[in-house]
Amino acid sequence: MSDAPRPTIADVARRAGVSKGLVSFALNDRPGVSPDSRERILEAARELGWTPSLRGRSLSTGRSFACGLVIGRSPDVIAADPFFHSFIAGLEDVFSTSGQILVLAAATPGRHETETYRGLASDRRVDGFVITDLRADDERIALVESLRLTAVTLGHPDIESPFSSVSVEDGAGIRSAVAHLAELGHRRIAHVAGPQTMLHARRRADAFTQAAAAASVEHVVVTTDFSAAEGAEATRTLLASDEPPTAIVYSNDHMAMAGLGVAQRLGIRVPLDLSITGFDDTELGRHLHPALTSVATDAREWGTVTARTLLDALAGADPIHVELSEPALIVRESTGPAPHPHPRGGSRD
Amino acid sequence: MSDAPRPTIADVARRAGVSKGLVSFALNDRPGVSPDSRERILEAARELGWTPSLRGRSLSTGRSFACGLVIGRSPDVIAADPFFHSFIAGLEDVFSTSGQILVLAAATPGRHETETYRGLASDRRVDGFVITDLRADDERIALVESLRLTAVTLGHPDIESPFSSVSVEDGAGIRSAVAHLAELGHRRIAHVAGPQTMLHARRRADAFTQAAAAASVEHVVVTTDFSAAEGAEATRTLLASDEPPTAIVYSNDHMAMAGLGVAQRLGIRVPLDLSITGFDDTELGRHLHPALTSVATDAREWGTVTARTLLDALAGADPIHVELSEPALIVRESTGPAPHPHPRGGSRD
Repeated sequence: MSDAPRPTIADVARRAGVSKGLVSFALNDRPGVSPDSRERILEAARELGWTPSLRGRSLSTGRSFACGLVIGRSPDVIAADPFFHSFIAGLEDVFSTSGQILVLAAATPGRHETETYRGLASDRRVDGFVITDLRADDERIALVESLRLTAVTLGHPDIESPFSSVSVEDGAGIRSAVAHLAELGHRRIAHVAGPQTMLHARRRADAFTQAAAAASVEHVVVTTDFSAAEGAEATRTLLASDEPPTAIVYSNDHMAMAGLGVAQRLGIRVPLDLSITGFDDTELGRHLHPALTSVATDAREWGTVTARTLLDALAGADPIHVELSEPALIVRESTGPAPHPHPRGGSRD
Repeated sequence: MSDAPRPTIADVARRAGVSKGLVSFALNDRPGVSPDSRERILEAARELGWTPSLRGRSLSTGRSFACGLVIGRSPDVIAADPFFHSFIAGLEDVFSTSGQILVLAAATPGRHETETYRGLASDRRVDGFVITDLRADDERIALVESLRLTAVTLGHPDIESPFSSVSVEDGAGIRSAVAHLAELGHRRIAHVAGPQTMLHARRRADAFTQAAAAASVEHVVVTTDFSAAEGAEATRTLLASDEPPTAIVYSNDHMAMAGLGVAQRLGIRVPLDLSITGFDDTELGRHLHPALTSVATDAREWGTVTARTLLDALAGADPIHVELSEPALIVRESTGPAPHPHPRGGSRD
């Protein structure tokens, strides 16, 4: 037995007489498995050396039962971006019920990204990776493949990839925001975008430009690093221009909330003089006054689906490409009809 | 050589003829080591089997070069609490330059806390733990000791502990906030507190009660789960009471920002009618209008010092108790003189 190959999900499925998918569900404690099937699967798993204890599983399979999330942004941005916290919470929703642990590593400032991946792989500290913040021509795809590990990417890479992906069509959310504002009569709209090296930030900016052009709306894009500070700065610049926009579409809630503060400080009333929209629909945005109109992507769900997809890939499933439901624009109080021409002179004097 | 005990920092120090502390500094790439000493230390380390590569170090020492952070709160609260993100960013500031990785595990909902610690320890997936959110009579101290691993606690446990601690006297921050408000003439102040099962939330509430009593100020404490939603709810309750407070001291910035939204929605002007203070001094609070007066604890620094203290403990240093600098109250725009008696009737009608 000691020289036999490690038991796989397929072995357990064969022994239990069920599908691989059902085994994966049962071993990962997911709903939708009847008590009978679950018992049969767990028994087969035990016989083959798959025991529910982490240690037993590790010893019998050579797997580490850990997944790596290497964050390529600076710790500053991690601290400020609520997306990561909800996303990590979603990963933990699944990992905490499946005996998997999450290894978190920031690739900067002192540690190179490639080294970090190699280090985690060569020690077999992780069985697979979650790859976030996809970049153009992303070299991490080939890197993880060369390390003979698996991964799940957030979003579709712009190059060929052997890995599963979990995507949100965030362009749809931006298009909804622009359509909503155009319908309210706004003819001059700005977009405060994230770093254009990140595919999702670029996708949002592209969607903005296309939607604004299609609606024959004057438009301008300002790029930032996604932080509240740069969001505030971009807002100051836009509002100080000769022809300030009457609406601003932000690429995340944090920047939108900072932008709201900037506008209010200048005596610009939101939404009477200026409409603003966020992205991510964070809890705090709902409690501000005015409550933030925002694109609701569910970062938590994104985390849970990513974790499940990665566990399935580790269990030998073929790569799949999951599209989460299209993000919806949640209209609250920070958007309203475009102001009449030159209405601000009075209120700002 | 294969039966020899694993080389320790002390062995390297002896061979290189320097102190253990200096070895730890050199191996962890910290500043303050002369190039000569660093070279001598690294050479001694190499001769003894301590190589700078993660894999080499792991194989030669049996250490995993990983530290565990088990978060006992629900993923919901993790997603919402900016403290964790800054704190984790601080840990990563140090770990990313010292070849250490961070293992993050949420103990809930599907995984019991004790099991999580045992699992990480029995596989030697981590060398030590960071223990946050200390509770009264915290059983995790004895647990980690029984697992023969080390730990660093955030704050002083209320029981005996063999571990180093890194603390912030957060009571001082709350006392500053109360003193500031009393000086501004406020005679009725409320505190929106965190869960009283957590020592730091309780310490802040106790400091509030004592400082308010000492200043002969009427006071009331409402407890929450630290979330923006419960902070908003507590604010609504307080402001709807027969004798609403003229100032509210919140136990974190998130709740204060949500409370600001609630007040503004009710037509209560901050700070003209109501003063509010936060805790943590988050980036976003500085950009709101009015900008938030807040107690500035440096969660990022707390993370870096905790990481260094844990690395020192792993290197064999005796337990130490680090007190970070006292948190300072940063006065911004959300606090002002107490309103004259009954000033609100007019503005709220």
